[in-house]
Amino acid sequence: VKTLGDLGEFGLIARVARIVGDPGVEIGIGDDAAIVRIGGGRVVLTTDALVEDVHFRRGWETPRRLGRRAFAVNASDVAAMGGIPRASLLSIVAPRSESAHDLLEIHRGFAGAAREHGAPLVGGNVSGGPVRMISVTLVGEAPRRPLRRDGARVGDLVFVGGPLGRNALARERRLAGARGSRHPPLPLPSPRIVLGRALAERRLSRAAIDLSDGLVQDLEHVCAASGVGAELELEAIPLAPALRRLARDAALELALHGGEDYELLFTAPARKRAAIEALASPAPVVIGRIVAGSGVVLVDRTGRRRRARPAGFDHFGRGARGRRG
Amino acid sequence: VKTLGDLGEFGLIARVARIVGDPGVEIGIGDDAAIVRIGGGRVVLTTDALVEDVHFRRGWETPRRLGRRAFAVNASDVAAMGGIPRASLLSIVAPRSESAHDLLEIHRGFAGAAREHGAPLVGGNVSGGPVRMISVTLVGEAPRRPLRRDGARVGDLVFVGGPLGRNALARERRLAGARGSRHPPLPLPSPRIVLGRALAERRLSRAAIDLSDGLVQDLEHVCAASGVGAELELEAIPLAPALRRLARDAALELALHGGEDYELLFTAPARKRAAIEALASPAPVVIGRIVAGSGVVLVDRTGRRRRARPAGFDHFGRGARGRRG
Repeated sequence: VKTLGDLGEFGLIARVARIVGDPGVEIGIGDDAAIVRIGGGRVVLTTDALVEDVHFRRGWETPRRLGRRAFAVNASDVAAMGGIPRASLLSIVAPRSESAHDLLEIHRGFAGAAREHGAPLVGGNVSGGPVRMISVTLVGEAPRRPLRRDGARVGDLVFVGGPLGRNALARERRLAGARGSRHPPLPLPSPRIVLGRALAERRLSRAAIDLSDGLVQDLEHVCAASGVGAELELEAIPLAPALRRLARDAALELALHGGEDYELLFTAPARKRAAIEALASPAPVVIGRIVAGSGVVLVDRTGRRRRARPAGFDHFGRGARGRRG
Repeated sequence: VKTLGDLGEFGLIARVARIVGDPGVEIGIGDDAAIVRIGGGRVVLTTDALVEDVHFRRGWETPRRLGRRAFAVNASDVAAMGGIPRASLLSIVAPRSESAHDLLEIHRGFAGAAREHGAPLVGGNVSGGPVRMISVTLVGEAPRRPLRRDGARVGDLVFVGGPLGRNALARERRLAGARGSRHPPLPLPSPRIVLGRALAERRLSRAAIDLSDGLVQDLEHVCAASGVGAELELEAIPLAPALRRLARDAALELALHGGEDYELLFTAPARKRAAIEALASPAPVVIGRIVAGSGVVLVDRTGRRRRARPAGFDHFGRGARGRRG
């Protein structure tokens, strides 16, 4: 292993996790967010960066909307722990030639979304640099029993909180087509804070993750952390309305591997199903089950089974496609 | 105002502060760190970014040491509030061709320093991007009465926690001279956590800031926030031993404007002086006083007074010199 490209993003994270580790930390590296006891309380902590031409492109959406997106994708990580965002930090790197108005608009978008979610922008930083980079940290209130990645058990049902593929489709169209205003703005994710909180506080779920890398890859993260495998029923996967005009295979591809859904994926014992389906409207949908073994198997309507290709997005791995990880 | 370069880093921060603001936040944007009540406790929050070729250069120090530096400069902001770091997050952007070993070394250095200071690395993020960017967030325990920037009062003495100019000198030599191993490594700052905590808990100080931009500029931040002016006695400013071989004016220039000292600058009523001098060894030094008015005036040994030039580092302002802000 020589370069980051050889090792891959997740390879690097696994090695980092071996470096760190601390007995005082309730949940550390390797989940959607960390949980730590500080100053008499328990807090959820998460950080993520959006880099120009890697995670976003200029001109795809307004700076204000980009600011809102930066808040939302981080809030989704807090939601995946069952936490409630309470404060936010925004650190921006930008070239000296950058429009001051645009930078303030990013702050306005971020601060607006943060305020609406009860997590005011309380600090940050501005530095010079070669491209725009937006680094976000959210701090939240931890639930008594956080939703972890490593709690899935054989026999659990696999749920998803909403339809998939909408963001991936919009992004593919942008990448394939013309720039500018001919396209509608990219959809903004709605972090599933209320759903995550209910799953945690009512002890309905055993394991959860937010869907950022793609359904298959994120489910693989849960399986690897929990030491189990999973089967997905392709027929059961809810597709976003925007995907209905696509060929079935193309739509499924986006739902399985597209990424950036920012819906919650979680597992729960079958006896909790009714309570879970009553939690939100539209109701979370059962799309598969946890099985012994490892990895993800796809089951089609005829009952034919095939192992999901180990695709998905890795920032540094081969075939990285330059989007959110 | 069109570009960030026109507006300047501090101009941008002032405008951002007007966008945000929230009654539930004890200390928000505009101080070294924020203080917020979360999950039953009060936490200190700070974030900062180090960008390659802006804040650091490759080859100036080992990746491990760079990781330690990234922790230390953020811990200094927590110290300036009187807080104690309790957890840390590290987000790294790097090119695909980056050495995996180097990136792990940055993590090792950061995690080692973080562990030693009781603020374990609990989360982070790795993304692709054009250059190395290291974004850090620290979360700490807040003191009952935080050290703010805006508490200085006319008549207060101005103290500095240690000698100045060492880091600025090392950096100037690097910039002027050859690369590689001919130079000793850049000094690593030691965040003044114990001193900051004592100043806050024993109510010895009315206002504090950590010295990152340079003595004059950081003192101006305190003056502006507090609505006062300050006089500095040039003879009293403690110079780092490394500066003794320089001409007096060159040494003073580094101490006044060089930046990156990461010592605490603070103000206190004269009656607290003995208690403050007994706090640490070497003792904090009185270098001036708070006066009515605004801005910083320099007083030389003959009693001659001149207004300090409004220099200092601004990432986007004219004359930005490409180092830490």
